[in-house]
Amino acid sequence: MSYDDRIERALRASLVPALQPGHPPQLAAALQHAVFPGGARIRPKLTLAVAQACGEDDASLSDGVAASIELLHCASLVHDDLPCFDDAQTRRGRPSVHNAFGERLAVLAGDALIVAAFEVLGRSCRQHLSRLPVLLRSVTQGVGMPLGIVAGQAWECEPQLSLADYQQAKTGALFAAATMAGAQAAGADGEPWRALGERLGQTYQVADDIRDVVLDAEVLGKPGGQDVALDRPSYARALGLDGAMAEFQRLVQATLLTVPVCPGASQFRQLIRREADRLVPQQLCARMASTV
Amino acid sequence: MSYDDRIERALRASLVPALQPGHPPQLAAALQHAVFPGGARIRPKLTLAVAQACGEDDASLSDGVAASIELLHCASLVHDDLPCFDDAQTRRGRPSVHNAFGERLAVLAGDALIVAAFEVLGRSCRQHLSRLPVLLRSVTQGVGMPLGIVAGQAWECEPQLSLADYQQAKTGALFAAATMAGAQAAGADGEPWRALGERLGQTYQVADDIRDVVLDAEVLGKPGGQDVALDRPSYARALGLDGAMAEFQRLVQATLLTVPVCPGASQFRQLIRREADRLVPQQLCARMASTV
Repeated sequence: MSYDDRIERALRASLVPALQPGHPPQLAAALQHAVFPGGARIRPKLTLAVAQACGEDDASLSDGVAASIELLHCASLVHDDLPCFDDAQTRRGRPSVHNAFGERLAVLAGDALIVAAFEVLGRSCRQHLSRLPVLLRSVTQGVGMPLGIVAGQAWECEPQLSLADYQQAKTGALFAAATMAGAQAAGADGEPWRALGERLGQTYQVADDIRDVVLDAEVLGKPGGQDVALDRPSYARALGLDGAMAEFQRLVQATLLTVPVCPGASQFRQLIRREADRLVPQQLCARMASTV
Repeated sequence: MSYDDRIERALRASLVPALQPGHPPQLAAALQHAVFPGGARIRPKLTLAVAQACGEDDASLSDGVAASIELLHCASLVHDDLPCFDDAQTRRGRPSVHNAFGERLAVLAGDALIVAAFEVLGRSCRQHLSRLPVLLRSVTQGVGMPLGIVAGQAWECEPQLSLADYQQAKTGALFAAATMAGAQAAGADGEPWRALGERLGQTYQVADDIRDVVLDAEVLGKPGGQDVALDRPSYARALGLDGAMAEFQRLVQATLLTVPVCPGASQFRQLIRREADRLVPQQLCARMASTV
């Protein structure tokens, strides 16, 4: 089964407990809207790829961990889109959750997704209970204080911030959780995968900043030009578009060189190359370079 | 050590990881503001009391579980007070989190507290890992979909709701989690404590509705009369003040009769009587009765 199929199936399964009889119907609809249809599912794909690279021995555990990571990502998007933050009206080419269901249900949907993420994590470790504590630690570090997603978002509320620390918390931390938890789901040590995950997160963030500048809303599925509009720190703003593109290429190469030695290293590098080209196509780089 | 001391110490310890170096300072301050100084800490007290009644054998585990329950309660208050919900300006006699720190940091503080609750839960089970899965299940059920706090809050967004289901989800579910998790922290079965927790939650909710009507803001630490002002379902509105007081007394008696057989049953009943009198003093009931 492809990663895509495994991830969608795991995500559907992860919401089954939440959608049992007795639930308030609008919040249930908001949860489904927040998770399906998804974006690129890059974080859970990473989790599965690392688990496989590390000799995965319990696919249902990796699937649950991947779902947990993606639920937390979806939760962060729902809260990020709220009127008090980005006030984004669209997400993945559809109305954002608060646009479709109102602000109150968007706050609650984010909360419910965070809880569901920990529920599925606990449930997935039935056969390998000893892996649960390290998985919980990686995942909470990726999303919580002091260095996870919520911290990254909170840096936006501070008068001064370091761009690198901000991006690391807002994006790198969950990428690191995705790679570390992938290894831990396979019973391997997560630490060797931390730096790789952080670098991948940085690479992704640079790509996202470039895409915000050069792609239009139709391709992005959300409004473009938001970093400037919202006065948000961005690599493209800090380095210029050329500088950001060069940085992206440098990071992709550096990432490829730091994949830990493991049985599935070659496949894993292929996945990174494919994703890099999907995010910032070579031809786009060439075209932009020719115009400057 | 008293329950109060244990709870405050456990809560301080539960925030230590979140407040490690590198955190965004305002979010850190918002977390502390949300948790300290606390209210009555009734839920974590219940957890400790049930753990002790069930023959507690790992006090640091019960402490961690109690902290986890209280962090989730604090998170729900912070999000509940947001402008899109109750827009409460005060809480526990001080500015609410969004009033003191702004709406964005209030959303993030709630999120960070939810994550911290699961972090401390995982960390507390070091010596008794086999208890972690059931504890995770009880706690996620108490706060998540379909029947936990977020569901209760979501019922406020529905055109029709059953008062009993709404109150059960909004209040009863976390009380049930508090009692069940107390038993599970002691290695006992949580199920016999579910109904008791739900009934205690109902009792507490009726008391809260009575207090909203008869006490002023100074005693409450938050604005009074909010149920009518916000058109929120309430026992005092549904049954009248007299009816609500009679229901409160009936529920307290019923709760006392359903404490499971266990070594600490008598102490546990004393705690319930003390809390009942603290919430709705007998003399208040008598005074109100004489005026109608």
